[in-house]
Amino acid sequence: MATLSDLTLNRLALSAPLPLDSGRDLPGVELAYETYGELAADKSNAILLFHALTMDQFVASENPLTGKPGWWQASVGPGKVIDTDRFFVICANVIGGCMGSTGPSSIGPEGKPWGMEFPVITIRDMVRAQVAMLDQLGIGRLHAVVGGSMGGMQALSFAANYPDRAGRVLAIATTARHSAQNIAFHEVGRQAIMADPEWQGGAYYEGGKGPEKGLSVARMAAHITYLSEAGLTEKFGRRLQDRDSKTFGFDADFQIESYLRYQGLSFTNRFDANSYLYITRAMDYFDLAEEHGGMLADAFRQSDARFCLISFDTDWLYTTSDMREVVHALNAVAAPVSFVELSAPFGHDSFLLDVPALDRVMKGFLE
Amino acid sequence: MATLSDLTLNRLALSAPLPLDSGRDLPGVELAYETYGELAADKSNAILLFHALTMDQFVASENPLTGKPGWWQASVGPGKVIDTDRFFVICANVIGGCMGSTGPSSIGPEGKPWGMEFPVITIRDMVRAQVAMLDQLGIGRLHAVVGGSMGGMQALSFAANYPDRAGRVLAIATTARHSAQNIAFHEVGRQAIMADPEWQGGAYYEGGKGPEKGLSVARMAAHITYLSEAGLTEKFGRRLQDRDSKTFGFDADFQIESYLRYQGLSFTNRFDANSYLYITRAMDYFDLAEEHGGMLADAFRQSDARFCLISFDTDWLYTTSDMREVVHALNAVAAPVSFVELSAPFGHDSFLLDVPALDRVMKGFLE
Repeated sequence: MATLSDLTLNRLALSAPLPLDSGRDLPGVELAYETYGELAADKSNAILLFHALTMDQFVASENPLTGKPGWWQASVGPGKVIDTDRFFVICANVIGGCMGSTGPSSIGPEGKPWGMEFPVITIRDMVRAQVAMLDQLGIGRLHAVVGGSMGGMQALSFAANYPDRAGRVLAIATTARHSAQNIAFHEVGRQAIMADPEWQGGAYYEGGKGPEKGLSVARMAAHITYLSEAGLTEKFGRRLQDRDSKTFGFDADFQIESYLRYQGLSFTNRFDANSYLYITRAMDYFDLAEEHGGMLADAFRQSDARFCLISFDTDWLYTTSDMREVVHALNAVAAPVSFVELSAPFGHDSFLLDVPALDRVMKGFLE
Repeated sequence: MATLSDLTLNRLALSAPLPLDSGRDLPGVELAYETYGELAADKSNAILLFHALTMDQFVASENPLTGKPGWWQASVGPGKVIDTDRFFVICANVIGGCMGSTGPSSIGPEGKPWGMEFPVITIRDMVRAQVAMLDQLGIGRLHAVVGGSMGGMQALSFAANYPDRAGRVLAIATTARHSAQNIAFHEVGRQAIMADPEWQGGAYYEGGKGPEKGLSVARMAAHITYLSEAGLTEKFGRRLQDRDSKTFGFDADFQIESYLRYQGLSFTNRFDANSYLYITRAMDYFDLAEEHGGMLADAFRQSDARFCLISFDTDWLYTTSDMREVVHALNAVAAPVSFVELSAPFGHDSFLLDVPALDRVMKGFLE
């Protein structure tokens, strides 16, 4: 498989150090990004897409590292729901990430990979970096910002902090605040990574193979939260994996075990463990109300955007109830908002999968 | 802290090798058990209590290893809900366990700890061992069998396989079948243990410290499933741990992180990692319908017991819906059954906590 250093990526270097919520400045920030479609002469047709925790900028084109199609290729492209014949779609790898943007695996000021010397970042920091990118690209006001899951957090953060920079805000399967249970699952993953001796305090880039086992366990735990209980039952139930009866051993007797092990292992081929630590930390720190004096409504008071919020009935990671809190906050400041809970069997991952009703809602809102 | 080998435990040696569902025989089985109250002259007042995954025989007396009160001391004792002035309560550590009954940490036939040479066991094997114990104690028919969670699985398995050996079956917060999601969470825990190099393929008893980090991660992941989302929010929310603001680091900033880390670490002081592997495997293998030709109702066709099933509305590990399947099976064979879903905020752990309605239902049923 290719490694990141083999790849030629589209990158933009920010012209100034990036101020962070921690009070530190991040020097030498580069953002790796992809664009789809053409920017109109009046620059009115740009959509900024934010990616989720383990995704990247390859929304609608083959990921050169994995060779797989873009993660939203079904919805983004010429003639598709997010129509790149009409819109200019931009997606950047988040800072802290591992697909070409500056993160813990990047070379830091001391000439070696940052590792755990990389500053802890926030969702707002990720957004701030992307707004700096827009500024350098000469894009003022966006037609829309769009994101699901952590991408939705960025969309809400964008709306709160850059209230006049987007006409539409589309946030899917997300929340304005990580709950105790959300934090708990992430903490399990972080502890699994840090428990792996190959993690070496994060300094595994030169020579070590990295905490593959720990990262794999972290991915397995998280993956369960992306799927609904009913979906798991339908997809796997108690079916056995390539055998007629239980082996009375510790092999992956059940399909669900085999599936999870595969999810864990394959993740380690494409994701950096330290990036996983930093991005989950950013998500856990996310509390949009707290950033605005404890009143979520105040986060949206200055916004001139139209909002569309979408939840899924089987999503137990970021629930309809979480989303309703955002709706109530928007209502409190009389922001134009439409909200829909869609029925889909796939749990949180529904936003990435084939849900025709999602396509219809998105298309209508972005018109 | 004391270690198991320091303790004098009540043990009973089974007089014959124990036949296992795997087809193997387990030789030299010992069961460590505790009793509370007095056995009546006619032996009619015995209640067999089954413990949950990480519990043990110390139901109503101080656990000599941890120095903590018995895990159900609030409900079992003189004048309590399970009144030991009236009933003779027996609880044995399950085979595969690590509190004195034969398990992977016990000395095997080759004169060293079994480790992963210990046979894979099932819930029915656990029950079979305890029935052999009853036989040796001269106890024929029990007044009742009682258990929560994995204890409830044993209670249902007992009812199915020894249909005339108990007058009452009380099963709390349990299921007749481990779901794909249940298996998935256990598999994460097993992979966390096996990923720890200190696990050493299970042969860590002589000299090694054992896979403490892996076991701790396993416990953390499981612990989340024992608590309700609402309970976590109420107990911890996003409150910070002994600090006024986020540290922008990877310490346990949030109370929930600190709590989970403590739960993980303290577990490693009292539980054997291999036992965790074997017992979770037994639970994952549990499918009472499968053992009876795929028809759950057939499991109960021979039973002459009265049943009481109790679920909790916030339990998302073994849900009311799981329990209802058992009720429908019992209805299908016209077994006398009462079923109640209790409201309690604590999730799955409600069966161990102070829920007055649970006490009332149990007391009434066991009269």
